[in-house]
Amino acid sequence: MAALARSVLVTGSNRGIGLELVRQLAASPRPPQHIFATCRDPESPRGKALQELAAQHPSIKLVQLVNLPSIRGAVRAVGSHLKDWGLNLLINNAGVSSHATLRSLDSREMLSAFATNVVGALVSLRQEFLPLLEKAAKGAGKEGLSCSRAAVINISTKLGSIGLCLGVPEAPMYPYRASKAAQNMVTRCMAAELQDKGILCVAIHPGWVKTDMGTEKVLGCAPLTVEHSVQGILTVLASLSQDTSGAFLDWEGNTLPW
Amino acid sequence: MAALARSVLVTGSNRGIGLELVRQLAASPRPPQHIFATCRDPESPRGKALQELAAQHPSIKLVQLVNLPSIRGAVRAVGSHLKDWGLNLLINNAGVSSHATLRSLDSREMLSAFATNVVGALVSLRQEFLPLLEKAAKGAGKEGLSCSRAAVINISTKLGSIGLCLGVPEAPMYPYRASKAAQNMVTRCMAAELQDKGILCVAIHPGWVKTDMGTEKVLGCAPLTVEHSVQGILTVLASLSQDTSGAFLDWEGNTLPW
Ligand SMILES: NC(=O)c1ccc[n+]([C@@H]2O[C@H](COP(=O)([O-])OP(=O)(O)OC[C@H]3O[C@@H](n4cnc5c(N)ncnc54)[C@H](OP(=O)(O)O)[C@@H]3O)[C@@H](O)[C@H]2O)c1
Ligand SMILES: NC(=O)c1ccc[n+]([C@@H]2O[C@H](COP(=O)([O-])OP(=O)(O)OC[C@H]3O[C@@H](n4cnc5c(N)ncnc54)[C@H](OP(=O)(O)O)[C@@H]3O)[C@@H](O)[C@H]2O)c1
Repeated sequence: MAALARSVLVTGSNRGIGLELVRQLAASPRPPQHIFATCRDPESPRGKALQELAAQHPSIKLVQLVNLPSIRGAVRAVGSHLKDWGLNLLINNAGVSSHATLRSLDSREMLSAFATNVVGALVSLRQEFLPLLEKAAKGAGKEGLSCSRAAVINISTKLGSIGLCLGVPEAPMYPYRASKAAQNMVTRCMAAELQDKGILCVAIHPGWVKTDMGTEKVLGCAPLTVEHSVQGILTVLASLSQDTSGAFLDWEGNTLPW
Repeated sequence: MAALARSVLVTGSNRGIGLELVRQLAASPRPPQHIFATCRDPESPRGKALQELAAQHPSIKLVQLVNLPSIRGAVRAVGSHLKDWGLNLLINNAGVSSHATLRSLDSREMLSAFATNVVGALVSLRQEFLPLLEKAAKGAGKEGLSCSRAAVINISTKLGSIGLCLGVPEAPMYPYRASKAAQNMVTRCMAAELQDKGILCVAIHPGWVKTDMGTEKVLGCAPLTVEHSVQGILTVLASLSQDTSGAFLDWEGNTLPW
């Protein structure tokens, strides 16, 4: 099996799905040459599991990515490793949930979910990562769209499906759902805008996974292990092409309604 | 024909679609008893057309609604007119567009579109208008859902349809599209949450209309007059029921994909 991509960047990689993505990518039979594992504070105790993992795999580079001013530094660090190759695969995984109901929500919580789940990733992409992805798309010597050429994967959620609108009475979660619907819109627009540049964009629902977020227990107990979810996600990523750019898929490759 | 509703509140009613909604409601053969026309600054020159209209129709009450602290005052004003009847119909019409492309957008513009198009209406609803709508739903002496009992209408846009994702290369408009997709999610969630309380919620696309917003000229010239659009919207509102709560409809009553 060919490597999924020469270089991959995963945000929010100090725990949960992000950490497992980095772990499975690094341990795969043909690992990416560069795995950029970003998080808010890699040096703190919250980054411990990631530090330990990076110590075992020289392909993993820890990169701090907090807020907009830190992006430029992060991208410079990434770029210096990549040289002329560009970045093949950007996985926007960092996210927060919010359990606010119609009655408990306030504007601060709405805006903060939107800032983390939509704006952060989009602004860092357009300011800094896009040139690296374009470089990869051009230099890949490949036609068509794929994760091995150039791709942006946004980790979304079934709760962001307006069509399904699952379990609102049990879990209203207005700020989370609204921000993830907005993120899905961004994914679709980017897919339309970037396909001519050779960049694929897809939204992936990872399943309902036993991470800190997945076990916040509003909806009972998450059924899926993080290992199982990430195995599924990586299999789906390897299968993506022209035909699936702009899609909303789950970790098993099923299409979800917007 | 029965009146659409005993009381109606329209936000952003000093110009464009909001102003025409107020005009046609007031001029209808059986007008609502109370038409609350809100805008940011009813006393300023920007409120002139609305002031003139209100001078002709005693059913129209001008209400200032700017930001969160002003909501409480606005609702007190509305409540004192309504007495024990509650508010039947809330039309969230105020909105801003934003023409940012992937390359020109910044986080301030994203957050500001989200604050105006999603958060403002949602927070004012839940803090203040919901009790008035619940009162109307209870006191109406009616079963089922309708605008004459209790309803929230969110003025959305076809550009907020993730499924359609129309014309991205010509009009990327990321902040506008993302905020309107988020608003659609909120409409669906509210429809699910509020139906047991007798409150209907629907998202309406008004068509592409010759208002200030519709003639910003990025996409050429809007085909629809504001009179025609609002005639359509009011006909659709009169037809809404249980079966259409949670729907995304255009001004002609056609269903749009999310
Ligand atoms: N778990 C599920 O069942 C599930 C289901 C559907 C979708 N998802 C999605 O999957 C993704 C990962 O979720 P998870 O379950 O792995 O969650 P998690 O265990 O709570 O981890 C969240 C990650 O995002 C980072 N993060 C949170 N807020 C951030 C901010 N403001 N700036 C930068 N980084 C931030 C966290 O960093 P810190 O450690 O610094 O907080 C952490 O690395 C999310 O996008 C989530 O919406 C999860
Ligand atoms: N025109 C179209 O083709 C079209 C198509 C699809 C959807 N829509 C939707 O229809 C609705 C009305 O649009 P329109 O064409 O009538 O637009 P418009 O002529 O630009 O009028 C917009 C209205 O919203 C108010 N508003 C804007 N920002 C606000 C804020 N931050 N706080 C409070 N009020 C604010 C404006 O008040 P000020 O005068 O104080 O600025 C004005 O009353 C919007 O939700 C829009 O998204 C329009």
